[in-house]
Amino acid sequence: MSGRVDNASAPGPRPLPALEVAPRGGRVQAHLAEAGVDALLVTDLTNVRWLTGFTGSAGRVVVLPDELVLVTDGRYGDRAEAELAAVGAEARVVVRRTQADQLAALATMLERSPRLGLEADHVSWADVGRYRSALPADIVATAGLVERERRTKDAGELARIERACALASEALADVLGLLDAEPTERVFALALDDRMRALGADGPSFPTIVASGPNAAKPHHDPSDRPIRPGDSLILDFGALFDGYHSDMTRTALLGDVDPWVTDAYRAVERAQAAGVAAVAPGVTGVGLDDVCRSRLTADGYGELFTHGTGHGVGLLIHEEPWVGTTSVDTLRVGDVVTVEPGVYRSSLGGVRIEDTVLVTDDGCRPLTQTPKDLSCLRSPPTT
Amino acid sequence: MSGRVDNASAPGPRPLPALEVAPRGGRVQAHLAEAGVDALLVTDLTNVRWLTGFTGSAGRVVVLPDELVLVTDGRYGDRAEAELAAVGAEARVVVRRTQADQLAALATMLERSPRLGLEADHVSWADVGRYRSALPADIVATAGLVERERRTKDAGELARIERACALASEALADVLGLLDAEPTERVFALALDDRMRALGADGPSFPTIVASGPNAAKPHHDPSDRPIRPGDSLILDFGALFDGYHSDMTRTALLGDVDPWVTDAYRAVERAQAAGVAAVAPGVTGVGLDDVCRSRLTADGYGELFTHGTGHGVGLLIHEEPWVGTTSVDTLRVGDVVTVEPGVYRSSLGGVRIEDTVLVTDDGCRPLTQTPKDLSCLRSPPTT
Repeated sequence: MSGRVDNASAPGPRPLPALEVAPRGGRVQAHLAEAGVDALLVTDLTNVRWLTGFTGSAGRVVVLPDELVLVTDGRYGDRAEAELAAVGAEARVVVRRTQADQLAALATMLERSPRLGLEADHVSWADVGRYRSALPADIVATAGLVERERRTKDAGELARIERACALASEALADVLGLLDAEPTERVFALALDDRMRALGADGPSFPTIVASGPNAAKPHHDPSDRPIRPGDSLILDFGALFDGYHSDMTRTALLGDVDPWVTDAYRAVERAQAAGVAAVAPGVTGVGLDDVCRSRLTADGYGELFTHGTGHGVGLLIHEEPWVGTTSVDTLRVGDVVTVEPGVYRSSLGGVRIEDTVLVTDDGCRPLTQTPKDLSCLRSPPTT
Repeated sequence: MSGRVDNASAPGPRPLPALEVAPRGGRVQAHLAEAGVDALLVTDLTNVRWLTGFTGSAGRVVVLPDELVLVTDGRYGDRAEAELAAVGAEARVVVRRTQADQLAALATMLERSPRLGLEADHVSWADVGRYRSALPADIVATAGLVERERRTKDAGELARIERACALASEALADVLGLLDAEPTERVFALALDDRMRALGADGPSFPTIVASGPNAAKPHHDPSDRPIRPGDSLILDFGALFDGYHSDMTRTALLGDVDPWVTDAYRAVERAQAAGVAAVAPGVTGVGLDDVCRSRLTADGYGELFTHGTGHGVGLLIHEEPWVGTTSVDTLRVGDVVTVEPGVYRSSLGGVRIEDTVLVTDDGCRPLTQTPKDLSCLRSPPTT
């Protein structure tokens, strides 16, 4: 426990373990045969980044049985060579200026691949037609060949997510005292975002949610010009982006004398969230973990007010596999990083949500978000 | 001219003209028959926002001949009602919690629409299959039915883009003096971003590019820890986001004694960019406008070093129709907002890019980015 607290209080430029990019291509190549394809064209840019380390906004990776090829345009040639070298990615880079030239290069590479997989969840319907016209291969729909491997975080990825979590926690502790001046939601969100960047984050990991009073009844509220005041429930749902990796945490502060419904709802959500975290383990299904939180809230009379899923994976995307909710088809595995975030909402009265991001381990999970649930531990009591 | 300068220096909370959302559905409905469909399912979130004003992260619009229906989930029901009411959008809202329930609602709505258009450039291949299974209609690929209308900015949209341009210009003027202290690219980018937000922007309109010295040879360089020094060419490519609308501007500063190649390249790009802006008018093709810049640079011996297209539309997206480049199929129309941004790049020596965003008008164009090309007009000379 003390090690994790140290992380949270010292997110400085400690060297991070390297990303283990080189083996990733092989992990995907191992699935080509079972997917019924001779090669896979990876067009989703997050998957491209995971496979090669390339961060440009235009590039595709051809996964052949014996090699990976990143195809990009003239804007990104130098960057691609440098980024792939930096992470030791075992992919070669091909640069062609126009789309037509890139497609021609792809066609040449695929001459000995009669069946080409496309990422059906990411390629547009129009692009399927373009690839069919330009490439010699039979085009086959595939699903999740990269994502199923990307779920499992290596040490370098985990270190970056932990850094992102620590930056967010430290930023919140630094700005919490501003609440005494009753800032607007927008001003407080800006202060939190600025502090994360000043501490070393590349930015917020998604638009920061600061939802106070009646606005807390809206799960995805955008910060407004409403001043945050005593009597509010205050939902803070935010994270930091660090070297491509995201964090995600929600805390709800009860400011001064809140409505008794809010106090009771807080206790129910706190219990349900703790039960959810305690239930995380390899082999638990997304449906099952969701049910742990949902059935606790239902037992306390709040089931109908829990209007969203329990959680989601976090990594190079803020929302990724595995999914934790009533319609999930995923089962948790060691190395997954997932959120547990039940919440309840009641129009005009407000809402409560509590969220941690946790790493699935052999024997359960390890929370990565270290801010105490009771924010008053971090500061003097709010003015009432 | 003086009116535009006033805009740039006073981006305060002047009231903006309302967005004219109500007529937009009709502009798209008018194209249904020629596209061979009885209804259109709009899944692209930018198109959903343009049609209805809805800003949530999950929602679809069914465009029927006589009505628009926004289908979203429980997280966004209240927001959808409020946002559509605020802009007077003529769409009704249907809220269903699960994907299955949403698809069932769509199926009911489409009972009298035998042919349903999907946005082929935006819908994923996997989703095409899901819609085919769930909906009674024949599924037809459509392209650009919303985008072709979204290109033409109304007064409210234009005012927001102008505000975004003014915020970016004012922020640059405010932080330019920091260059005297030889900040790193990253520190300067952060200062520029923070200043845009402090002035009222919702954020940068894309990741700010600060590329100095040899880094300026990379058109899409990410800010690094390299200090910006005398002798550098310094490319600043950035914009502000304001109420959903983007701005985009590039200036290149020559700091102190730069390589003679840089000075000569600057003059060539300046001439090419001015020629491009002067050529903007309704009826000019994207290919033709690109050729104006490209042929000027070729005549000056820099054609081979101009490795990207000349420009793109700007609006709810930072990159949208119309496209200005060698492979464009677009022709400029009154109401288009486009960039003109030629640049040349030479490894190790650096690069030069100059970009304005302009509004296409009846008789040519009106520049919306007001920062002078010569940044030394804004500040004391850099230390040399």
